[in-house]
Amino acid sequence: MRKDLSIGANIKQIDTQKVFALCEQLFRAYGFSKDDSRTIADVLIRADLYGIESHGLHRLIRYDEEISGGQVDVNAVPQIVHETLISACIDANKAMGQITSVNAMKLAIQKARNTGCGMVTVRNSNHFGIASFYTEMAAAEDLIGVCMTNTEAICVPTFGSEAMTGTNALALAMPASPFVFSYDASTTVVPRGKLEVYKKNGTPLPENWALDENGKPCTDAAVVINNIIKKAGGGIAPLGGLGVLHGGHKGYGLSIIVDLFSAVISGGLTSNHVNIEPGHTGICHYFMAIDYGIFGDKTSIKNGMSKFLQEIRDSKKAEGAVRIYTHGEMEAELMGKRLNTQIPVNEKTLEEVKNIANKLKVEFSL
Amino acid sequence: MRKDLSIGANIKQIDTQKVFALCEQLFRAYGFSKDDSRTIADVLIRADLYGIESHGLHRLIRYDEEISGGQVDVNAVPQIVHETLISACIDANKAMGQITSVNAMKLAIQKARNTGCGMVTVRNSNHFGIASFYTEMAAAEDLIGVCMTNTEAICVPTFGSEAMTGTNALALAMPASPFVFSYDASTTVVPRGKLEVYKKNGTPLPENWALDENGKPCTDAAVVINNIIKKAGGGIAPLGGLGVLHGGHKGYGLSIIVDLFSAVISGGLTSNHVNIEPGHTGICHYFMAIDYGIFGDKTSIKNGMSKFLQEIRDSKKAEGAVRIYTHGEMEAELMGKRLNTQIPVNEKTLEEVKNIANKLKVEFSL
Repeated sequence: MRKDLSIGANIKQIDTQKVFALCEQLFRAYGFSKDDSRTIADVLIRADLYGIESHGLHRLIRYDEEISGGQVDVNAVPQIVHETLISACIDANKAMGQITSVNAMKLAIQKARNTGCGMVTVRNSNHFGIASFYTEMAAAEDLIGVCMTNTEAICVPTFGSEAMTGTNALALAMPASPFVFSYDASTTVVPRGKLEVYKKNGTPLPENWALDENGKPCTDAAVVINNIIKKAGGGIAPLGGLGVLHGGHKGYGLSIIVDLFSAVISGGLTSNHVNIEPGHTGICHYFMAIDYGIFGDKTSIKNGMSKFLQEIRDSKKAEGAVRIYTHGEMEAELMGKRLNTQIPVNEKTLEEVKNIANKLKVEFSL
Repeated sequence: MRKDLSIGANIKQIDTQKVFALCEQLFRAYGFSKDDSRTIADVLIRADLYGIESHGLHRLIRYDEEISGGQVDVNAVPQIVHETLISACIDANKAMGQITSVNAMKLAIQKARNTGCGMVTVRNSNHFGIASFYTEMAAAEDLIGVCMTNTEAICVPTFGSEAMTGTNALALAMPASPFVFSYDASTTVVPRGKLEVYKKNGTPLPENWALDENGKPCTDAAVVINNIIKKAGGGIAPLGGLGVLHGGHKGYGLSIIVDLFSAVISGGLTSNHVNIEPGHTGICHYFMAIDYGIFGDKTSIKNGMSKFLQEIRDSKKAEGAVRIYTHGEMEAELMGKRLNTQIPVNEKTLEEVKNIANKLKVEFSL
């Protein structure tokens, strides 16, 4: 249900398999193993397949900067620093977020297979792409998957004017037919990428979305983004908007919950300390898998979920609306269309990828 | 951070211990045991102590109707219908919500003590009061507590016009000093009680909050409430409001997640089927306790949470704001003032309680 970043930009349709192949080569060229390069490419391109361009190829430039800047250690070996039958705490030691995260969710899945539930918290990691990639790993194994991640601070607490929590995504996937229920959303009113679209288009922001460096409501996207980058104050409102009228305190609380499970219980950095120290992001994640068979018969529970979602999709539409979506449906449909054909890529992004390929002496084949 | 229902109403200050004593007597008179009556009174009055009047004495009239109407079975014996070391599914058999819920959270706590994690889902229950009562039971045992509950449908899906999910509260408590972090919020933009305040005051609703029976945005609280009661269509928007602009699809997804954990995995009724059959609400809940020591040293994790919350409270304020609260702080302060003194009670509510006392032949002593 997200909008893309490409409003007003030129788009080219690129063969999906070629994008996979090039991405894999690029990460090989950074020094990642063949398997790890494949994993990173899989997570990255899943975002483009799902229509979440902000987390796809568009991110390569940032990953390139973080690998060059030492935030991401290509040779990092993540370590389990605490473990029980149902839990683990992993220190990623600055590994690439996608690699640590796929392994962390695999560990949560294995624990859920053995005990019914696995919870893995991760500290000292990096940006991991889209959270739904990991929750859907669990759903593919017929488990409930939960995932959270903090980021650098961009979100102001209710009544505050200094960003203290991150985009702080919360994701959950539950098997259902014909569409897996796959929820994946930031706990801010909008993610930073949405502000970039408003900035690009020169459109004023809705009044309820952001504060300037003096703690005043601000509708100029360029000012807000600039302040976030400079850590000059202000930021984006939590889900529910500024103040309490529309429930901003609810989104604010959810963003704290994400920091609790990713950063606090892992002993890592909360959002307000992420990306402060040079060469270290310190991003933290949380992964959970639940075998819902611990509550009753799996077939009947899954059928119950499918029925509920279908009842929602079939319910009466709002004036002017033609379809009610459940979460994950839109993305699954889009991936079905794009996986064996093409994905749309912004020309500016293509140019960035070309420059990275040149730098790494990888043939640019898109 | 909630507003009370008493705007414009006459308020009387009533001795807190007298309220406890009367409540306990009333539930004894319905036929509940001494212990169970005490439990129900504790949960109910906690809401008034916390300033959440909508869930306190104000609810007695509804409980009275549900006991008379057969939705609540005073003699019900809840049964565990499925159980593992870390989980249970309870059929409440129409028991009073508070009694089943306290026992369900006790079971989750006991499992968390043994294994690190306990998850208990409950079907065929009734309204249970405030969710934070249960999560704070876990926090008092130095555990993370999670609680969810569905209700009858009042919330319209994004692009929909028919209420399909309930108020669907989501609560979480985590030990911290000096205030337990205690999040407890509906997944709707506002709970139904807030609309009642607008109706009482004759104030138009913000445009983004509700739909009428034709699926058109509606600012008349009386129309919306009337339609909800008659199940005539329309309803309240999810957190984030109508449409997707302010993230309404996020609140909509959260409300589905609450129904998943409370109703779907328990094999109970999802919100859209609650309160349809006469004499049966079918409300479902979910309780979880996590011993956060499964991730590392408890003292340092708890200190990390306290530090993070203090950093938020100490951060720069928005223009015009004097204080940043973390969740549970306001309620804890209010309870500190009210527990050994008085609680404010709406005169209309007092009149309702008096009528119930007369009916039950209990001396009205407030």
